[in-house]
Amino acid sequence: MLGVCYYPEQWDEARWTTDARRMRELGISFVRIGEFAWSRIEPARDQFNFGWLDRAMDVLHAAGLKIVLGTPTATPPKWLVDECPDILPYDEQGRVRGFGSRRHYTMSSQAWWRESARIVTAIAQRYGDHPGLVGWQTDNEYGCHDTTLSWGPEDLRAFQDWLRRRYQSCDQLNEAWGAVFWSMEVADFAEVTLPNLTVTEANPAHRMDFWRFHSDQVAAYDLMQCDIIRAHSPGRWITHNFMGFVSDFDHFAVADHLDLASWDSYPIGFVEKFPFSEAERNRWAETSHPDIAPWHHDLYRGVGRGRFWVMEQQPGPVNWAAWNPVPKPGMVRLWTWEAMAHGAEVVSYFRWRQAPFAQEQYHAGLNLPGADALSPGGLEAGRVAQEIAQLGQLPAVQQAPVAIVFDYASYWATMVQPQGCDFRYEELAFRWYEALRRRGLDVDVVRPGAPLGGYAAVIVPTMIHVTDAAQAALESAKGVVLIGPRAGSRTRSFAIPHDLPPGPLHDLTQNRVIEVASLRPGLTQTVSGGVEGHATRWRDHATTTAQVLARFEDGGPALTQHGQALHLLCWPDEALLGSVMDLVCHTAGLHTMPLPEHIRLRRRGDLWFFTNYGPEAWSLPESFECVLGNHQMPAQSVTVAKSLSEKV
Amino acid sequence: MLGVCYYPEQWDEARWTTDARRMRELGISFVRIGEFAWSRIEPARDQFNFGWLDRAMDVLHAAGLKIVLGTPTATPPKWLVDECPDILPYDEQGRVRGFGSRRHYTMSSQAWWRESARIVTAIAQRYGDHPGLVGWQTDNEYGCHDTTLSWGPEDLRAFQDWLRRRYQSCDQLNEAWGAVFWSMEVADFAEVTLPNLTVTEANPAHRMDFWRFHSDQVAAYDLMQCDIIRAHSPGRWITHNFMGFVSDFDHFAVADHLDLASWDSYPIGFVEKFPFSEAERNRWAETSHPDIAPWHHDLYRGVGRGRFWVMEQQPGPVNWAAWNPVPKPGMVRLWTWEAMAHGAEVVSYFRWRQAPFAQEQYHAGLNLPGADALSPGGLEAGRVAQEIAQLGQLPAVQQAPVAIVFDYASYWATMVQPQGCDFRYEELAFRWYEALRRRGLDVDVVRPGAPLGGYAAVIVPTMIHVTDAAQAALESAKGVVLIGPRAGSRTRSFAIPHDLPPGPLHDLTQNRVIEVASLRPGLTQTVSGGVEGHATRWRDHATTTAQVLARFEDGGPALTQHGQALHLLCWPDEALLGSVMDLVCHTAGLHTMPLPEHIRLRRRGDLWFFTNYGPEAWSLPESFECVLGNHQMPAQSVTVAKSLSEKV
Amino acid sequence: MLGVCYYPEQWDEARWTTDARRMRELGISFVRIGEFAWSRIEPARDQFNFGWLDRAMDVLHAAGLKIVLGTPTATPPKWLVDECPDILPYDEQGRVRGFGSRRHYTMSSQAWWRESARIVTAIAQRYGDHPGLVGWQTDNEYGCHDTTLSWGPEDLRAFQDWLRRRYQSCDQLNEAWGAVFWSMEVADFAEVTLPNLTVTEANPAHRMDFWRFHSDQVAAYDLMQCDIIRAHSPGRWITHNFMGFVSDFDHFAVADHLDLASWDSYPIGFVEKFPFSEAERNRWAETSHPDIAPWHHDLYRGVGRGRFWVMEQQPGPVNWAAWNPVPKPGMVRLWTWEAMAHGAEVVSYFRWRQAPFAQEQYHAGLNLPGADALSPGGLEAGRVAQEIAQLGQLPAVQQAPVAIVFDYASYWATMVQPQGCDFRYEELAFRWYEALRRRGLDVDVVRPGAPLGGYAAVIVPTMIHVTDAAQAALESAKGVVLIGPRAGSRTRSFAIPHDLPPGPLHDLTQNRVIEVASLRPGLTQTVSGGVEGHATRWRDHATTTAQVLARFEDGGPALTQHGQALHLLCWPDEALLGSVMDLVCHTAGLHTMPLPEHIRLRRRGDLWFFTNYGPEAWSLPESFECVLGNHQMPAQSVTVAKSLSEKV
Repeated sequence: MLGVCYYPEQWDEARWTTDARRMRELGISFVRIGEFAWSRIEPARDQFNFGWLDRAMDVLHAAGLKIVLGTPTATPPKWLVDECPDILPYDEQGRVRGFGSRRHYTMSSQAWWRESARIVTAIAQRYGDHPGLVGWQTDNEYGCHDTTLSWGPEDLRAFQDWLRRRYQSCDQLNEAWGAVFWSMEVADFAEVTLPNLTVTEANPAHRMDFWRFHSDQVAAYDLMQCDIIRAHSPGRWITHNFMGFVSDFDHFAVADHLDLASWDSYPIGFVEKFPFSEAERNRWAETSHPDIAPWHHDLYRGVGRGRFWVMEQQPGPVNWAAWNPVPKPGMVRLWTWEAMAHGAEVVSYFRWRQAPFAQEQYHAGLNLPGADALSPGGLEAGRVAQEIAQLGQLPAVQQAPVAIVFDYASYWATMVQPQGCDFRYEELAFRWYEALRRRGLDVDVVRPGAPLGGYAAVIVPTMIHVTDAAQAALESAKGVVLIGPRAGSRTRSFAIPHDLPPGPLHDLTQNRVIEVASLRPGLTQTVSGGVEGHATRWRDHATTTAQVLARFEDGGPALTQHGQALHLLCWPDEALLGSVMDLVCHTAGLHTMPLPEHIRLRRRGDLWFFTNYGPEAWSLPESFECVLGNHQMPAQSVTVAKSLSEKV
Repeated sequence: MLGVCYYPEQWDEARWTTDARRMRELGISFVRIGEFAWSRIEPARDQFNFGWLDRAMDVLHAAGLKIVLGTPTATPPKWLVDECPDILPYDEQGRVRGFGSRRHYTMSSQAWWRESARIVTAIAQRYGDHPGLVGWQTDNEYGCHDTTLSWGPEDLRAFQDWLRRRYQSCDQLNEAWGAVFWSMEVADFAEVTLPNLTVTEANPAHRMDFWRFHSDQVAAYDLMQCDIIRAHSPGRWITHNFMGFVSDFDHFAVADHLDLASWDSYPIGFVEKFPFSEAERNRWAETSHPDIAPWHHDLYRGVGRGRFWVMEQQPGPVNWAAWNPVPKPGMVRLWTWEAMAHGAEVVSYFRWRQAPFAQEQYHAGLNLPGADALSPGGLEAGRVAQEIAQLGQLPAVQQAPVAIVFDYASYWATMVQPQGCDFRYEELAFRWYEALRRRGLDVDVVRPGAPLGGYAAVIVPTMIHVTDAAQAALESAKGVVLIGPRAGSRTRSFAIPHDLPPGPLHDLTQNRVIEVASLRPGLTQTVSGGVEGHATRWRDHATTTAQVLARFEDGGPALTQHGQALHLLCWPDEALLGSVMDLVCHTAGLHTMPLPEHIRLRRRGDLWFFTNYGPEAWSLPESFECVLGNHQMPAQSVTVAKSLSEKV
Repeated sequence: MLGVCYYPEQWDEARWTTDARRMRELGISFVRIGEFAWSRIEPARDQFNFGWLDRAMDVLHAAGLKIVLGTPTATPPKWLVDECPDILPYDEQGRVRGFGSRRHYTMSSQAWWRESARIVTAIAQRYGDHPGLVGWQTDNEYGCHDTTLSWGPEDLRAFQDWLRRRYQSCDQLNEAWGAVFWSMEVADFAEVTLPNLTVTEANPAHRMDFWRFHSDQVAAYDLMQCDIIRAHSPGRWITHNFMGFVSDFDHFAVADHLDLASWDSYPIGFVEKFPFSEAERNRWAETSHPDIAPWHHDLYRGVGRGRFWVMEQQPGPVNWAAWNPVPKPGMVRLWTWEAMAHGAEVVSYFRWRQAPFAQEQYHAGLNLPGADALSPGGLEAGRVAQEIAQLGQLPAVQQAPVAIVFDYASYWATMVQPQGCDFRYEELAFRWYEALRRRGLDVDVVRPGAPLGGYAAVIVPTMIHVTDAAQAALESAKGVVLIGPRAGSRTRSFAIPHDLPPGPLHDLTQNRVIEVASLRPGLTQTVSGGVEGHATRWRDHATTTAQVLARFEDGGPALTQHGQALHLLCWPDEALLGSVMDLVCHTAGLHTMPLPEHIRLRRRGDLWFFTNYGPEAWSLPESFECVLGNHQMPAQSVTVAKSLSEKV
């Protein structure tokens, strides 16, 4: 199903009816509204102006559109900021981040919670049972513009409270943080400082707790909004629109109280954001890398416990990357089908019409700037709508054969303490995912501690701190478990485990890491034996009592096996990563289908969705029967097919 | 004629007479003084110490030098800053920019206007009718060190006032800015914030108005000084010394009330400042790129409505670039003749003697540091002085066959909203100018709205917002008009035109831009047809009813023609740019003279000035008769010649 | 002799006895303790808790270890910072540098001096005559984390006081600084500002004095600690642990009142810190460049007037560089012997046991994290201990045949005024040292003004300001004196000398510099004649009456000779540098032994220490008899040998 993001407050009321009708004509079923409209809903304190929104919702509903209503907390209006300046966030340099764009609040502010509750209550009461309303979106893009962490006085106060609850006594905090080192001990929680603007790096345990504190706040803040909405809007689901390559808070924890996950898919902009090589960036500039959107689909399907939307789908060029090319013809359609293939319930385009004003005036919409005329992306959306109708109800999404365990806390830990300045957890996870997908495998992304019983292979790119639950899940996995470098290298208190890394994973791996090396670009170490390639960026120097499948040149273990557990003791280059993944698949008995760099495959029930990211054509094997598209796939095309053989 | 910048306050009074005599002996006619001397003129409030300056002016006058007196407002003294700390500017990071160098004031400060008026009045009253005085320079290098924009409380107050005058009501401001987007609406002008330190980018309309406000302030502040001077100094002209590659304010608007323009020419330092490639920077490190000084000569001849000086000419190595090489022998002479060729009335060297102390002690002068001995540059200046005398009165400067329309507001607009981070307006304009000059053409640089009737070709690299006057001038142009990418892409309110770009230029071009692509380095699009090459950095995707002269690979129009109007829908690489310029010249019936990369030509009356930037020699065609120099031009040389044929 | 750094406060008291015993078993004689333990010694004001430290010292002493006790002033505890917030330093951006790591104090704070004196007195009184105590370390790593300069209100006040003492009157200050330039004159010392956050660069004379002021403060602060210690701890020596590649204060001046110098040797981390090329960084990533540690050994032997320790020796990977590889096997041993070869009295490893918590948890120790088991580095240390015992007392260190004059003030001067942004004094000095060492020469590093009589060659890479003492020493040198570019280019007041550079060195060199060129990367100038190669980065354009040994292409002098004085008028590339050094050695009659890039040699008495930094093997000439190791030296090995011929 298709949706669209719409801002009735930005257009003359006279245009609403036409807009709604044209949405339906294009094949759109859902419309998201309201998430930035606070200044129009409440232009001054307690002076609510619901009239326009009442009418807008009625118009949309009357046209047959199902409405998703956003709470407007991402954009507190000026009068509120002036009344309560302590809602403003601070950056890491200690500067107030002021009014004039969006997300100018810190969740540490008590005033902000009070005001958020007030506006959410008002809107939920007003529209909770509107007949057109099917669901809610809380706020908008938590963490966008680096807003998860804030470094102001309100944050310090709230952080001290959080520490007080967590550690009970300063002795316990001092002990946990190793504060005796450099005389950093405190005698009262009120003595704790923010971990910024220190002379040299702050204690990583201090920084890690600061990150956890903020992540906890996001979950608690979102739950506060959900509780209010649920009290006033029975029968409607709630989601939040998460982002791509934003890992500053634990999305699993936030989604625990959401009904479904959603995310905002800007495949091209992310090519500039993710640390690709320049060659890769040029290669994928106008189509996006073929694993960017899929990675997030699989991640958010996991975050949403099986249910997810694409709440915002890029419909053409955007405005916010360093460079913003026009997507190749066919890509808007391809991305839409890619989302469907991975289980998206709805793909909702951002936005209905390009705004000719303000910050995003260079952001394409389904319609040309300010106009009632479809853009190139709008035309592609119309085609997809027809194809969806043709294809009918898609089969259910089944569990994948492979799981990647994704751990937000490992992202924070490696940001807090990179040790080698290119050890980037998101990059590691993405590259391992890419290697699996190049082998034609479907992948689930799961949280640490999730049950792993049904997977033939479980991939743990790394997991810095291994909780009891995560340890138990890994130990009870049935399939092959591949553990990566740095795993188990820190306790909950951000200390090296007393029995050395991988700590809780020692029984599984039979390894002990005694030294670690971060390797500068250009410095590699050769790995040979059962797998071949090079270590780059990182190497764990370990002693082992496991079987050594491959060694470094100096004889140290590079890949070990103990039972079903493989342990890779380095960051692998592309060759070594491929070699390891081949071994994993072979060991796990997984059937693979090697794909060229521009082709991907995702199954949904008995349907095989092939996507060609171009620029070369590609042909499906003859053993498939096409349901949509053809065997001969031109660049930027999709083919949906059924396999004629039992297994391909 | 030659001049020199001199600082009597920096040298023992005993040396003044010798200095003045040696200036005259070298062939110098004009001397600029006084522009940094506030602390000596008024060492404490209202305690004026004019005696030394009286004597200095008398000495210079007695030696036969014509004096240009600068107002000292670029360097408010410490006692004044301590009395009125609110004159200090703020940087975009919100920090006060303190005392200790120069230009430490914001024009938004009311105290600063009051104090400026006070000191200018005192000096104008004292020296307005001094017999040696021929002209005035206001302040020094507006905008230098990024001082056009300031971000403090005084700036906010003055900006709010400016908005109040402009928009009358908040409704109009909210409407113009599209402030409904992200709930940025204000209910009172006092609610408007500075557009810095926001969470993500501020509204570009907000930022654009902030830039306009500051540009307006420069013009008003300068006019205030001019009004005072004119009241007390009848019969003297007024100028301001503008800079190279500084476009933060509208120089045309400032010069509207000046008698002539002047600029400070540091050809080598600008090689590091302008975004040349590293190869170009190495190529031109010791001579400067052959179009840097000419571009500014042509620009400031336009700014000065035909009259301009070089107020400061680099006489050797300077101190302020990342690297500061010694100019190749001959370059000081060459630059001086280059300025004359382009119509400079006076070339004034900075400075008479290298100061052995303070910030610019590594800045060469005509004399060695602290000494009464000519530097290598001083020797070259002496040679030029003799040559000027030999050559006698130069012919008048005539209108060039080609005009480039240069639009300061387009610089601000693309800085505010680059969309692709290498879309640099100054670079675009410079490259198009360079392409014309490589074809041996003389060029005028004119402001938007200037009459274009007399030009065979009019070049508009881009013009983001097209005013009514600019539209009218372009529509009434007689020659070929070449319009570049992004033209007409924004209204006065910084919105996309309701009928899509190029908005007011639609009738001229017959094009509509429906999408734009910014292209990262490495990403290009091939153009072929009537012109050949590649688009880089930017492409406008357009629909057209004009004749399509060249297309992109996907069939989209790249270069269109409608009547005399050519529209290039991309940023051209060097090959495409050359191809387009060849077509323009051919269409316009312009006779070109292709020149190697190190040779340039500029005509003045019947004199043809050839400059060889080296390192290779070059020979003039035989059809010229040399007036100065020879047919065989060695590296770093000048030849002035007359054409023996009607047209070459 | 070997030592180790130990933190009893970080471990259960129960482990101390075992630790002490195992240290002795490993062959360790000295233990440094206490330097970060303020919060445990004085957990609240005047509540001293000496018990644990009493017991720790007794345990160590009982085990036969000699104790070096550090004063804990590098880590003021939180209660003190809260009581006296004005002890906190400010960064150049004007931000307070807060509590939470270390070195969070400015020496400008009067409160800080009072508190420092109080804690040092308390500790010196308590332990001054402890039978296990042999020496003291003041504070820890002055200048670490850019803490020499601070930019807060306390710094301004103290700086004004320093200026008042230095200049007596504002007239003298204004004159010295050339403050008339840009109206920067002050009428009261209280008007002087900090030289940061100015609109453009502050006056370099102002900045230079600010740097001198801070350097003076370091010496005075350290002397204050020394005076207290000496009053209470008779018969014990005092040192400070200096750093590598930190030149922000005059180390010679600090060491004037120390009994011996010491420094902290992290050879691998420095590979990332020093401006090596990427190729060099990769080449030496796992061994360090073969001149990094030796350079500092020679420097600190000079700073310590012949006596120095390595107070902290890297024993494995560290945590603080951009990348932190594991040293190649053998390097910990090699570095230890390298230090001994250069005269180190003791090599003390940092640290006994890797801390599993806090900022340095990735910093290796002699024992594994938290464990009682030797790390790979610990095993190498044990081997060295045995070898030292075998070899017995080493011969005394004799004066080297070559001296490099190292001038901290030249570092400040070129930082204050680089003129070419890659003119880095430390790099220049290091490269010239490297060139000498590649020729098998032993080198002393001496301060300006030190007697130079005994040296066959004296190398002055540059010396921006030449004091009378430095001039006298150079003029009375007996050997060849090689002077580098920019020498003598500034007076004490940071002005160009009235008789032009090299000012006081004119008589020695017979040159006058009339212009200088800084050359961007890619821009070089060819030198030919008696030496061959290229100038890069810098060229002095000079007139000369000396003999010209080599010239630039334009005929200007590149290398001149006047008597024994050679003057190189540029920054030489590697070829030119080698050519010049060959000429110096030849002229000075020095016997050289050309060594491959990975081999170095240092003599101590009749012992020749050869070090092989790998990865290739190398063979000693047959004319040596090996005392330790073999003629055939594998990678990462040491051979100590005696020469069988009179001279090799």
